[in-house]
Amino acid sequence: MTQTLKNDRFLRALLGQPVDRTPVWMMRQAGRYLPEYKATRAEAGDFLALCKNTELACEVTLQPLRRYALDAAILFSDILTIPDAMGLGLYFETGEGPRFRKIVRTEADIAQLPLLQPERDLDYVMAAVKAIRSGLGGAVPLIGFSGSPWTLATYMVEGGSSREFRHTKEMLYRSPELLHALLAKLAVAVTDYLNAQIRAGAQVVQIFDSWGGALAHREYEEFSLRYMRDIIAGLIREHDGRKVPVILFTKGGGQWLEPMMETGADALGLDWTTSLQQARRTVQGKVALQGNLDPSTLYASPERIQAAVKAMLDDAYADGVPTRYIANLGHGITQWVDPAHAGVFVQAVQEYRIPQAG
Amino acid sequence: MTQTLKNDRFLRALLGQPVDRTPVWMMRQAGRYLPEYKATRAEAGDFLALCKNTELACEVTLQPLRRYALDAAILFSDILTIPDAMGLGLYFETGEGPRFRKIVRTEADIAQLPLLQPERDLDYVMAAVKAIRSGLGGAVPLIGFSGSPWTLATYMVEGGSSREFRHTKEMLYRSPELLHALLAKLAVAVTDYLNAQIRAGAQVVQIFDSWGGALAHREYEEFSLRYMRDIIAGLIREHDGRKVPVILFTKGGGQWLEPMMETGADALGLDWTTSLQQARRTVQGKVALQGNLDPSTLYASPERIQAAVKAMLDDAYADGVPTRYIANLGHGITQWVDPAHAGVFVQAVQEYRIPQAG
Repeated sequence: MTQTLKNDRFLRALLGQPVDRTPVWMMRQAGRYLPEYKATRAEAGDFLALCKNTELACEVTLQPLRRYALDAAILFSDILTIPDAMGLGLYFETGEGPRFRKIVRTEADIAQLPLLQPERDLDYVMAAVKAIRSGLGGAVPLIGFSGSPWTLATYMVEGGSSREFRHTKEMLYRSPELLHALLAKLAVAVTDYLNAQIRAGAQVVQIFDSWGGALAHREYEEFSLRYMRDIIAGLIREHDGRKVPVILFTKGGGQWLEPMMETGADALGLDWTTSLQQARRTVQGKVALQGNLDPSTLYASPERIQAAVKAMLDDAYADGVPTRYIANLGHGITQWVDPAHAGVFVQAVQEYRIPQAG
Repeated sequence: MTQTLKNDRFLRALLGQPVDRTPVWMMRQAGRYLPEYKATRAEAGDFLALCKNTELACEVTLQPLRRYALDAAILFSDILTIPDAMGLGLYFETGEGPRFRKIVRTEADIAQLPLLQPERDLDYVMAAVKAIRSGLGGAVPLIGFSGSPWTLATYMVEGGSSREFRHTKEMLYRSPELLHALLAKLAVAVTDYLNAQIRAGAQVVQIFDSWGGALAHREYEEFSLRYMRDIIAGLIREHDGRKVPVILFTKGGGQWLEPMMETGADALGLDWTTSLQQARRTVQGKVALQGNLDPSTLYASPERIQAAVKAMLDDAYADGVPTRYIANLGHGITQWVDPAHAGVFVQAVQEYRIPQAG
């Protein structure tokens, strides 16, 4: 039975239905800028332990909703849960970001990666989704997510974060069939993983293609977009009596909105390098747009934040035509932001009056 | 008296004059992928010592021209010579990239930065330019260069390389007038520095805006492009009887080609995320385009490199209309490239027959 949503503004904007005001959430809204998050994380032990602790993962997901009138919650988890479940041994080194104990470079490495059964192998994620849905009590929709195959592959091949993607690019240009084998396997895993999240209760899913922007324009379509299209084609698009919208976010993908629109995604996430006004001209209302304030804007004074939000929303509604638009940052909020400033951002969006069509 | 250039193909393409074939050079062509470069660098001691040694800086500039039939030489130097000359104490830590002993964060820090006299304070650069011109003997033109004010500022404010530009962005959003004071000072320094290079013999100059792509779309124009426009307006545009073309390269700037065209630059550099075909539609022959093969393509087999070069040049000349185009990589060649593969790239460009206008 479909649970009634007290606030479905976010879903409505994603699906192109009228909204009373612009829905808003913040990427990485459960994060280190919040003192209560830091306290819970310390209680859990470390970041990965926090992801795997149902009660505490639920707690940190709900924390920002207590502070701010956000229109969506997002599952607290990591993009690298899939390779971790495949046995690569995810760990975090202070100041170094994520690392894997095992790396994936050869045909044998790829062949050995197990097929996942997400309900079993990533049961802690599904438990968190269920607990969060219960904790939300229908207040706002819950977003599930995954990294894109290309983005996951970069970490698996490099063994962690990278600036130049030396080994992944080497595989791409020297042995593209090997990289395709890895990406195909990851596309299946991501599809199954997102479907399991949807069955567990995620009402929207977002694919984070954090490193798609490192690819050349032809290679983006062949090595990243193609697999995201396959994933979207394999997703449960209606569950529990409701459509399940999909958001596609390629950081650095502002030049590729046209091919991204053809994936079947309901919305495209934009980083701060893209003008919302230009993006709207490109997508012509065929998909929703989400974004895209530079998170560093939140270092500014409240007055400057308000002015920046107004400029962004003016771009989003430039010509008075109702737009499928969700306000957000252009990337995750950083740990150095004052929580009060995040509140100024959310409130400025909510106070903005959407211009009515002519 | 104007020295005769044996090969002026690069200058001709920059200025929109007919060429017999596509001119080609490679960003960072004097670099660690060449064993002879590594030998000379070892002889010098370290990277900075190499930049400051006239004879050896000249030697490494000429090395790639002995191997490949390149159409331009580029001064061997670093983008951070200006802040170093301002007294910040540039040094390099293995694996960490450039660092400064002094950082620039306050009004007093900015006020204390000295006005440079490049002929005196960066005499080693001018000595290298003169030595290289003499060493080239008119074979091909010599490119001088500088980092952009925004790019230099990020290193000066962060104290080195950065991923998130926390402190520079904080200054930008919190105290924009402070950042403008720094950028204005740097714009003067860059103008004087490039003019000194032109007087010493640089026949083309390129501005490297390596981190412009980290800025939001509005902030790019206000904090990076504006100062590059000021610089171009202040450059010596004709010297020794010849026009001195200017190339503007913002990495990650593919969405901003239109405002970049209005700076007065003769050519725009493109990274590999931008389709040359789309870029040509945008610039309409008003400026030349330079780029843009993903340097990682050179990890591939010779056959794949040849195919990638052909695809790039087909894009560059898609409709048979003569184009102002210079073949290059979309960023510096990496240290892991086989020198023979760089040769395949250069040769593939040279063997490509430019289609004649219908």
